[in-house]
Amino acid sequence: MTTAFVQDQWYVAAYTREIGRELFTRTVCGESILFWRTADGAVTAMSDRCVHRRFPLSEKPSHLAGDTVVCGYHGFTYGADGVCVAVPGQTRVPRTARLRTYPVVEQDSFVWVFIGDPALAATTRIPRAPWLDLPGWTVVSGMEPLAARASLLVDNLMDLSHETYLHGGYIGTPEVAETPITTEVDDEAGIVHVSRHMADAACPPFYANSTGITGRITRWQDIEYTPPCLYLLHSRIAPAGVLPDEDGSDPHAFHVEVVYAITPETGNSTHDFWAVARDFALDDEDVSDYLAKSNRTVVLQDVTALDTLEKVIAGEPDGYQELSINIDTGGLAARRLLDRMRTR
Amino acid sequence: MTTAFVQDQWYVAAYTREIGRELFTRTVCGESILFWRTADGAVTAMSDRCVHRRFPLSEKPSHLAGDTVVCGYHGFTYGADGVCVAVPGQTRVPRTARLRTYPVVEQDSFVWVFIGDPALAATTRIPRAPWLDLPGWTVVSGMEPLAARASLLVDNLMDLSHETYLHGGYIGTPEVAETPITTEVDDEAGIVHVSRHMADAACPPFYANSTGITGRITRWQDIEYTPPCLYLLHSRIAPAGVLPDEDGSDPHAFHVEVVYAITPETGNSTHDFWAVARDFALDDEDVSDYLAKSNRTVVLQDVTALDTLEKVIAGEPDGYQELSINIDTGGLAARRLLDRMRTR
Amino acid sequence: MTTAFVQDQWYVAAYTREIGRELFTRTVCGESILFWRTADGAVTAMSDRCVHRRFPLSEKPSHLAGDTVVCGYHGFTYGADGVCVAVPGQTRVPRTARLRTYPVVEQDSFVWVFIGDPALAATTRIPRAPWLDLPGWTVVSGMEPLAARASLLVDNLMDLSHETYLHGGYIGTPEVAETPITTEVDDEAGIVHVSRHMADAACPPFYANSTGITGRITRWQDIEYTPPCLYLLHSRIAPAGVLPDEDGSDPHAFHVEVVYAITPETGNSTHDFWAVARDFALDDEDVSDYLAKSNRTVVLQDVTALDTLEKVIAGEPDGYQELSINIDTGGLAARRLLDRMRTR
Repeated sequence: MTTAFVQDQWYVAAYTREIGRELFTRTVCGESILFWRTADGAVTAMSDRCVHRRFPLSEKPSHLAGDTVVCGYHGFTYGADGVCVAVPGQTRVPRTARLRTYPVVEQDSFVWVFIGDPALAATTRIPRAPWLDLPGWTVVSGMEPLAARASLLVDNLMDLSHETYLHGGYIGTPEVAETPITTEVDDEAGIVHVSRHMADAACPPFYANSTGITGRITRWQDIEYTPPCLYLLHSRIAPAGVLPDEDGSDPHAFHVEVVYAITPETGNSTHDFWAVARDFALDDEDVSDYLAKSNRTVVLQDVTALDTLEKVIAGEPDGYQELSINIDTGGLAARRLLDRMRTR
Repeated sequence: MTTAFVQDQWYVAAYTREIGRELFTRTVCGESILFWRTADGAVTAMSDRCVHRRFPLSEKPSHLAGDTVVCGYHGFTYGADGVCVAVPGQTRVPRTARLRTYPVVEQDSFVWVFIGDPALAATTRIPRAPWLDLPGWTVVSGMEPLAARASLLVDNLMDLSHETYLHGGYIGTPEVAETPITTEVDDEAGIVHVSRHMADAACPPFYANSTGITGRITRWQDIEYTPPCLYLLHSRIAPAGVLPDEDGSDPHAFHVEVVYAITPETGNSTHDFWAVARDFALDDEDVSDYLAKSNRTVVLQDVTALDTLEKVIAGEPDGYQELSINIDTGGLAARRLLDRMRTR
Repeated sequence: MTTAFVQDQWYVAAYTREIGRELFTRTVCGESILFWRTADGAVTAMSDRCVHRRFPLSEKPSHLAGDTVVCGYHGFTYGADGVCVAVPGQTRVPRTARLRTYPVVEQDSFVWVFIGDPALAATTRIPRAPWLDLPGWTVVSGMEPLAARASLLVDNLMDLSHETYLHGGYIGTPEVAETPITTEVDDEAGIVHVSRHMADAACPPFYANSTGITGRITRWQDIEYTPPCLYLLHSRIAPAGVLPDEDGSDPHAFHVEVVYAITPETGNSTHDFWAVARDFALDDEDVSDYLAKSNRTVVLQDVTALDTLEKVIAGEPDGYQELSINIDTGGLAARRLLDRMRTR
């Protein structure tokens, strides 16, 4: 059951909206981390275990007192830098009484946390998903807990042919499974690209209902996965045959940026963050509601399938030989990158 | 927790009535098997794991399409012979894309499946329980899931003295525990016989209410266990002193054939198939309802006791020394046969 | 997960009121023990596993018949001395058919059972808590199941500074955490003493509501822990400044004897027996109800916290370094004594 997590990388721990003046805990790569905002609004990230007897600082009656956290068991008190400032029964605070802290950055509506050697945080790239926090885009988003290892979600998202079968009636149509993909690995940047361009395809309800297109469409799916955590699906929908202008502008198409952050919780569970940004119907709340509800349904279909797969994997003998085909090229490339990151 | 299952043997996987034009899954000896009937009515048995990414073919949205199974994850499609006939995104189907299939036979109202080397299936005997599918007999039957290893159910059924204590008020009377047994092992045929003939015994409600006998009875219990799976209890009830005629005919007695199929699901759980066939009151639905309800109650009393024993065994240190007495002769003989089958 | 229990010691298994003419089971130090009273009122303690097939003798339809226990599975029957007196199907009872019995003593309202070599029982001291069964004292008591190892409860009770944080509003006030302790270990007797004397402290609701004191108090907490099982908290409350008389008598103070019996059930669960004895308001049922309800609430606050800690310990990597301070002196001393008892 031991799963090595990729170290020395940034992971999405939460949406910025989740962290406020209440103690908040989330486990990332097996590490229980406490988050809260100071009175000035800065996000802090520190170990969620009191140095004294390991009581979780997120657990009541632990509480915030100004810009300190008071442990609910014996009152050990910590500042925003994780340093202990008070203990019960004595005035001297032991020098070693400090919580491990984590580099933390708010960017693109996410709270990113650095897992590994903090000295490497400043020089390690945080991948971008700018549409989540950009004028001209409207976003719906959520997070679903997944009782399955992160690699199963990576496999799932890298191969969208499953949309046809698992998500029929939402985002899948026959053309997705039928259309071949092209895969490119940018080894230097550490990014996997998978593209599927459907010139003439049925329009699934997800896009018909949100864009208002009634006929067939030209549908492009361009995946860009930056291991370990950030997955982007650049989705372009236009009436069949409508292409971008020669100058690269694309005024007659609808653009949806589907963003997933794939954050391992434990070796067998994952935080499945999902967001859908669009550049149309920006103020239409019905469209927002529809896309939020539909995408959550799709995510939950994946969750159900992957939770099942996790049970299969956990419950059955090793040595099972998978059979891979063309559609798996992107997923296998992602695995290779992840393996490389895990071992270097 | 590893339990070696007896290999190269036929096991009851289901009642024939359970398998139709819906995908059906059952785990036998740790192997997850998919069952369905072709349009022609033939039962198929194949691995319930897609060769691609192990998704269970019994899990929605997987579905039957004519005489093929379509995986609900990526659409891998298999024929009744387990051979993959279509994959997404490409026309060539890999030659190795085939599911493991299992020899399968419908007999005596059961679907039997062969676990082990399929080449041995044809020459391996399937034990018979003809009364379950024979004119002149009326049958009630069911299956209860048991959260205990199969050997505990074998122990239980081989020693019916427990009827007096665990099933008092249903099938047990003092005479069952008091009357000595005779045990015979047919090593060549691989069958254990245990007999208990009570010349003058109280009639328990199970038989009083179904036969209408009001006084004391002559009650014979003749057990015939063919490891690993099939257990028969030939039960003969007659008014006290009434014996078979000299020519072997037995017109004044009531005959009940109690059949159990003991099919390991995992090393710690078992499918407990039970059936009660009778040669009297053939069209009396009240008697059928009464016997079905009573026998199920008795089976559930066993299930409760054996589930408890499984927890005891799983939770306590090894090296516990059982104490066996005369009543255990049949159970110990059954264990010896099973051990022999497991090691040869 | 294997935890060595301290052997050759007396443990509290139950309140005397819990054992009567019904079969009663409790697991102590991993051993499942059956308790019942004979017709003469003597408490028996024997293994709760039938020698035949390990069926729990406390499990229905097992039952008492006079001064014998009849196993619900096959009817093995045992006397109050654990010796088997009847088995089914034969008149001869095997000589080795006897249940392990345990030395058992009723004292101070508890049923004590000896775990280890029975030959050492008579010479091993049973620590006393006389107030639980003494004229001039009124007692409320209970037992809460704890899903945490016993050592976490020992830690908890040896350091009462946690009252201020975990039990604020019940028994905690700032002075408890602020006041230094004195710790003394009586190595010969095997007892740890921890004292905290607060000369001028706020009166927590627990004592204000029960004694009627309205102002500040002099509050003494004198802990006396006799590993492994018995913990006493001698609690003295008086109006601030009121001390015992020179002759040692103490007529103007209120005395509460808080007793805990800490009995390991398994390596990760504990029976948390608690009792509160007082020498005032002896016949006041309102005070009894209030103290019972309040103390149970306090115990359940501990249970919640310790169950959380057990999950933390069970789920996280070894090698975590605790940080101990002055308040932990008593707890660390208790651990040393327990370790010594475990290894000698």
